Amino acid sequence: MENKIRAQILIHALPYIQHFQGKTIVVKYGGNAMINYELKAAVIQDLIMMSCVGIRTVLVHGGGPEIDYMLKKTGKESRFTKGFRNTDKETMEIVQMVLCGKVNKDITGLIQQAGGKAIGLCGIDGAMIKASKVKDEDMGFVGEVDEVDASILLTALDAGFTPVISPVAYGTGAVEGHPLNINADTAAAKIAAALGAEKLILMTDIQGILKDVNDPASLIKTLSIKELLSLKDKNLISKGMIPKAECCIFALENGVNKAHIIDGRLPHTLLIELFTDEGIGTMLTAV
Amino acid sequence: MENKIRAQILIHALPYIQHFQGKTIVVKYGGNAMINYELKAAVIQDLIMMSCVGIRTVLVHGGGPEIDYMLKKTGKESRFTKGFRNTDKETMEIVQMVLCGKVNKDITGLIQQAGGKAIGLCGIDGAMIKASKVKDEDMGFVGEVDEVDASILLTALDAGFTPVISPVAYGTGAVEGHPLNINADTAAAKIAAALGAEKLILMTDIQGILKDVNDPASLIKTLSIKELLSLKDKNLISKGMIPKAECCIFALENGVNKAHIIDGRLPHTLLIELFTDEGIGTMLTAV
Amino acid sequence: MENKIRAQILIHALPYIQHFQGKTIVVKYGGNAMINYELKAAVIQDLIMMSCVGIRTVLVHGGGPEIDYMLKKTGKESRFTKGFRNTDKETMEIVQMVLCGKVNKDITGLIQQAGGKAIGLCGIDGAMIKASKVKDEDMGFVGEVDEVDASILLTALDAGFTPVISPVAYGTGAVEGHPLNINADTAAAKIAAALGAEKLILMTDIQGILKDVNDPASLIKTLSIKELLSLKDKNLISKGMIPKAECCIFALENGVNKAHIIDGRLPHTLLIELFTDEGIGTMLTAV
Amino acid sequence: MENKIRAQILIHALPYIQHFQGKTIVVKYGGNAMINYELKAAVIQDLIMMSCVGIRTVLVHGGGPEIDYMLKKTGKESRFTKGFRNTDKETMEIVQMVLCGKVNKDITGLIQQAGGKAIGLCGIDGAMIKASKVKDEDMGFVGEVDEVDASILLTALDAGFTPVISPVAYGTGAVEGHPLNINADTAAAKIAAALGAEKLILMTDIQGILKDVNDPASLIKTLSIKELLSLKDKNLISKGMIPKAECCIFALENGVNKAHIIDGRLPHTLLIELFTDEGIGTMLTAV
Amino acid sequence: MENKIRAQILIHALPYIQHFQGKTIVVKYGGNAMINYELKAAVIQDLIMMSCVGIRTVLVHGGGPEIDYMLKKTGKESRFTKGFRNTDKETMEIVQMVLCGKVNKDITGLIQQAGGKAIGLCGIDGAMIKASKVKDEDMGFVGEVDEVDASILLTALDAGFTPVISPVAYGTGAVEGHPLNINADTAAAKIAAALGAEKLILMTDIQGILKDVNDPASLIKTLSIKELLSLKDKNLISKGMIPKAECCIFALENGVNKAHIIDGRLPHTLLIELFTDEGIGTMLTAV
Amino acid sequence: MENKIRAQILIHALPYIQHFQGKTIVVKYGGNAMINYELKAAVIQDLIMMSCVGIRTVLVHGGGPEIDYMLKKTGKESRFTKGFRNTDKETMEIVQMVLCGKVNKDITGLIQQAGGKAIGLCGIDGAMIKASKVKDEDMGFVGEVDEVDASILLTALDAGFTPVISPVAYGTGAVEGHPLNINADTAAAKIAAALGAEKLILMTDIQGILKDVNDPASLIKTLSIKELLSLKDKNLISKGMIPKAECCIFALENGVNKAHIIDGRLPHTLLIELFTDEGIGTMLTAV
Repeated sequence: MENKIRAQILIHALPYIQHFQGKTIVVKYGGNAMINYELKAAVIQDLIMMSCVGIRTVLVHGGGPEIDYMLKKTGKESRFTKGFRNTDKETMEIVQMVLCGKVNKDITGLIQQAGGKAIGLCGIDGAMIKASKVKDEDMGFVGEVDEVDASILLTALDAGFTPVISPVAYGTGAVEGHPLNINADTAAAKIAAALGAEKLILMTDIQGILKDVNDPASLIKTLSIKELLSLKDKNLISKGMIPKAECCIFALENGVNKAHIIDGRLPHTLLIELFTDEGIGTMLTAV
Repeated sequence: MENKIRAQILIHALPYIQHFQGKTIVVKYGGNAMINYELKAAVIQDLIMMSCVGIRTVLVHGGGPEIDYMLKKTGKESRFTKGFRNTDKETMEIVQMVLCGKVNKDITGLIQQAGGKAIGLCGIDGAMIKASKVKDEDMGFVGEVDEVDASILLTALDAGFTPVISPVAYGTGAVEGHPLNINADTAAAKIAAALGAEKLILMTDIQGILKDVNDPASLIKTLSIKELLSLKDKNLISKGMIPKAECCIFALENGVNKAHIIDGRLPHTLLIELFTDEGIGTMLTAV
Repeated sequence: MENKIRAQILIHALPYIQHFQGKTIVVKYGGNAMINYELKAAVIQDLIMMSCVGIRTVLVHGGGPEIDYMLKKTGKESRFTKGFRNTDKETMEIVQMVLCGKVNKDITGLIQQAGGKAIGLCGIDGAMIKASKVKDEDMGFVGEVDEVDASILLTALDAGFTPVISPVAYGTGAVEGHPLNINADTAAAKIAAALGAEKLILMTDIQGILKDVNDPASLIKTLSIKELLSLKDKNLISKGMIPKAECCIFALENGVNKAHIIDGRLPHTLLIELFTDEGIGTMLTAV
Repeated sequence: MENKIRAQILIHALPYIQHFQGKTIVVKYGGNAMINYELKAAVIQDLIMMSCVGIRTVLVHGGGPEIDYMLKKTGKESRFTKGFRNTDKETMEIVQMVLCGKVNKDITGLIQQAGGKAIGLCGIDGAMIKASKVKDEDMGFVGEVDEVDASILLTALDAGFTPVISPVAYGTGAVEGHPLNINADTAAAKIAAALGAEKLILMTDIQGILKDVNDPASLIKTLSIKELLSLKDKNLISKGMIPKAECCIFALENGVNKAHIIDGRLPHTLLIELFTDEGIGTMLTAV
Repeated sequence: MENKIRAQILIHALPYIQHFQGKTIVVKYGGNAMINYELKAAVIQDLIMMSCVGIRTVLVHGGGPEIDYMLKKTGKESRFTKGFRNTDKETMEIVQMVLCGKVNKDITGLIQQAGGKAIGLCGIDGAMIKASKVKDEDMGFVGEVDEVDASILLTALDAGFTPVISPVAYGTGAVEGHPLNINADTAAAKIAAALGAEKLILMTDIQGILKDVNDPASLIKTLSIKELLSLKDKNLISKGMIPKAECCIFALENGVNKAHIIDGRLPHTLLIELFTDEGIGTMLTAV
Repeated sequence: MENKIRAQILIHALPYIQHFQGKTIVVKYGGNAMINYELKAAVIQDLIMMSCVGIRTVLVHGGGPEIDYMLKKTGKESRFTKGFRNTDKETMEIVQMVLCGKVNKDITGLIQQAGGKAIGLCGIDGAMIKASKVKDEDMGFVGEVDEVDASILLTALDAGFTPVISPVAYGTGAVEGHPLNINADTAAAKIAAALGAEKLILMTDIQGILKDVNDPASLIKTLSIKELLSLKDKNLISKGMIPKAECCIFALENGVNKAHIIDGRLPHTLLIELFTDEGIGTMLTAV
């Protein structure tokens, strides 16, 4: 491709770059984008580009498949209740090891290798994410986030690091100090609210919110909270999407400017969402 | 164009963006790129993009045609000796007015309008550029740069501004405090040295250094000081290029990492030079 | 004179020096004090003394005669409507060149030469002064100040510079980015308000506000806004004084502690106003 | 016990507290002190006390037993060559998960629970510990530490956190970015040198350096490098002690003031070493 | 004593140390603890320990016996009215000399000698304590504290010094600039309020507040303002205790968290109060 | 006097004010200027003026007459050996009380009253001046200055205070922690050296260094160290002047730019020395 066209494309991204400079964006990273090698490499590049143009980026990752793999390897069965993993003591140990020890540090290493600066943390570090154990006994060490103390994140961001966060919380109340398994989308939403982020971006394995789940052409590009709730009332939101939609609503109602549900199955969706005219997926706004 | 390709092109620029982050680049802006409206708009965009990705940019501008126009308008003849304008008292007043008052503030305004932060200065501000009057009486108030005090530039850069500099110096010695007309290429080279810049970029109306001035295909892409001096000895450097080459040598010998002579007649040459594989024009290196 | 008396006079100024330390004073510099060589030198000395005793000084200058001179030189006629210069495109270019390029940098150079630290700016730098075009089409590029962004001034003052400001604004609205000609008194008043200055001082070619314009002995030394408005209602304020009085009222109503109309035809009026018992000219207060 | 005696004991510790204020101490934490519940609780308290009296403490932990347990659970055999674990790809994953995910975050959580501020990191974070793969192919992903970049540790210490470090390095050279298993004693020694620490303390499961391994009464309380090398030449240092002794020598030769080999099988050995007259274990000094 | 027990006692103090870190404690130092050599040495050690564990300590001292001794030596009689020293001009000179020159600098020297950092100040320095002369003419230069300007104390505390304060004020009103003799308990209470201290501790020569002055077993350990006022109404507070109680009430009503009246006749009462379970003396709380 | 002349005199001082801005000047204050009420008031005004124009001023005071008065009052005889006061334990107490408690705080109060910011310190505060006891047993607690730790002075100067220093040192060696009586001129010289002061000014009760002690017209205005030593060799320096001359030489040989011996019997000698063309007294220079 000609250099001239290259330059034009860079310039095309300029207004978006100018807009996001100095702002904070919290990305929930999960699904196919974490498994597929090319997609993963593209996400890492996107994160570094975001950091280069002055965006303060926080990455919250998932890790279901890796947890399943390790549970299986240790002869432990994966069970789920209401979308949450049944997390007995032994499972919690595996969850913590896989998320905080493997997935988290691997992503951190990839960012460093690509020339970025990353620091791998979880909710236990500085007791950054405090959670209490859910009441449902069957679910075990599953937590509900009570409070996010953003100070350790601010220290890291101010020192130029991209924090990479595992969704493992510091337990409070009856399980004071015990690690708890928390939902990564929720963790991302609560962190975004605590940081007063400009954007919360949830990377998923679907296109966004669809009017008709079976029709990709029915993607809704923009949606206010009110419109979203109205769709929900009419049962037009798919079951799997509901918790994600609720995370977005929480963020929007707590100071985050925009929330996005984007398709992580395509390469560079973060850059496309941030730096092109059309964006990608569904954008949610407060009003 | 597809978003996917847009993203790839952004990513293609990433290693260059990473490399230049936090570094200082001094650009001499002149020739066609200052006259042609589209070229000018493209330079402004390039400067803002450079600033967005964390490059500390200093712009030193020329302004010959605007000076000629104004001299003519006031019934004053433009005369030159050895490439320097004969600058009697009246001419110096016009030079100062046009450069510091018109050209400088217009560029500053354009950067602001495009969403950047700019501050228009000249060598008189904080006596940033001190010069002494050349001995040749015929040349009048033409100065040779003695010393650059970079402190006002550092204040501006640290506060996030792009300094836009007119090549008008604060006279010392016999003309203490009197404005002096200085060469913009030299001013840029001395400023680059004083700032320990990564790069000095001279925008010109030629392709770069050519083996054969009449053959565009003879462009020399890279040249060490030694090679350059050898070409000069063989009279293979065009006369007009010699002072520019000397500015580059001064910069390279005083701590600047690379010096470039690029073709300002093309749009976005700054971005192309900085953010593509091939670069553009001639790159000079110390060794 | 005996050293003993010299010391006594310095000590006499001490309470005033103590009072103004660390405070901000905005001076509108114009009229004879800009033209007469001795007066100009005295103003420069006064500014440096103010800076030495810790006063954060901002100078806003005029430049009518220099503009007239240059307009004439380029064969352009000077026309005025309601006290404002009819500023067509060509005139605006001359205004900008003369103010920002000539007058501004000359004053900056004089302060540097006298051992001070000065930086020459205008409303375009950092878009410090935003103005919109007046509706009266005949007046051309004349602006009304909408907003002053003091951040560039604070950066300069904190770094120890005396900002010297040309009354040329950054146009907004229909003329986004276009330079606009603004009134220097108004610019000074708006800047004083934006900085929460202790004092606004307008240097004029009259003694101050007189009860009887023809009787120098009728100088009013102190006047509250209320008293001033009462005089105006009785048509006891001369026509030329009204806009200056309105600038003072604006400043006083927007956080400036005191406003002064002083006689710039005498040397060292700034020092006399600030550091002697009687002061000079007319002092306006909010109540 | 009487309050009076309590007070006397606190006062007895005062000169030591005064001496260590503001200094950096790097502790290698391993062996029984990591397994036994009471000992672990005592170490945590000691760390918090150290932090309370202004000591900048860095903890480098081991985790052999937990790794063995997990390897066994996943049906993987633990093999060792020359004291180093044979670390094939699969083993390295377990090592990383157990150290960075389980042991590290558990210690971090315990410090937080006891009222301290801790942050769990490994050599991958900010590429803090760079290592190259050992040449011996059988050993797999075992690394030799090349370089410690202390900046992330300084950021954490300055923000009041106690860094808890897993001995997993960021691979360089042929294994760029790949995690490497490194020796915890070596990691602690290199970190101590990089921080210019006052002390390196290695917690072990022996009393210290003994003249006669079978005679606890033969403990050597103080030893210079010279004396240590002399003992080694005479084969009077036990085989297991040699690598620890070498770590101490490295630290002492690279700016660390004192190195200690202490007995982690007793509670509060850190406090006893730091805050009592006799200290505990063997103290090594440069001369 | 065994090191193990030493360690346990240090650890026993840990929760208290954690609690008081970074907090401000103002101690009024007087009575026997200033006269007895061993008690004095113990107070100095306590102050250094407090400083070592991060408590920002301010010491306000008395000095009655030293004043009496000096007055006697100069042939001046000590007279008191309503608990206040009759302070004529000559007496005030002696008070000032003894407190600011002798007692203050001696304590400062002792802290330095014990390895601490101290600075000896009085209310005159930076006009830190402004007071007005009491109306009762007989009492002479006795002052009532109007205002405490804590800025000089914050400068000293931030630089790591323990301020040692003499109860001599800077007179205002009719005695502008004249030193005034003020009550040390009151000075301490006002300083504690100005600093928003965690605690005010008054060291006395009694056990604390007793239900029955003649029965040491009747010590009241905790008392709210309400309870204290109720006791006072029932005349159950001894006469000498009333002004001290009022100082405590002032502090508690002005932002100080707790006030203590402790027995300075025992060694290390400060450490015992701060770092043991039972504490010592009487603790007063707002509610 | 006319305002115009007042302004001229202020302007006359301007070059001196510009020269001394931001520089440090150490003044030894003693003799008549401390006793006479008008002279004292003038010195205070001079100090405030110096501070207002940005001079970092440190005042070291004497206090012989006040000490004599107090010794007499307590029935103690004043005895001198070789110009030093015989300072037995009792005398040392009086010296410390009078200097640190009375003279120091009175000067501090006067500066505050005149609108300045002062802090009264002595060599004990922060152990700023360390001295060892002279060997001559008869002289008692007289010290020789070993070392000045300027950090407490820098803290005070940076916070905008004028430090007022009593010549009482913190004893080291055999008298660790004991106050020692030191010579005020020496203290000033050592402080000036420790601060790298621009000037040391010794206020005396003579005109300066005279060629003929009986002829006021024989004042030597400028003297290099070499010239001074030559005069001394020829016994042309009066006996009382020799220690002062030696203080000046010490300062000049340790980084102080200029030393002055001025006549404190005239009002405003500090201002006259600093801010007039002729200066006053004798100026000593290194070469």
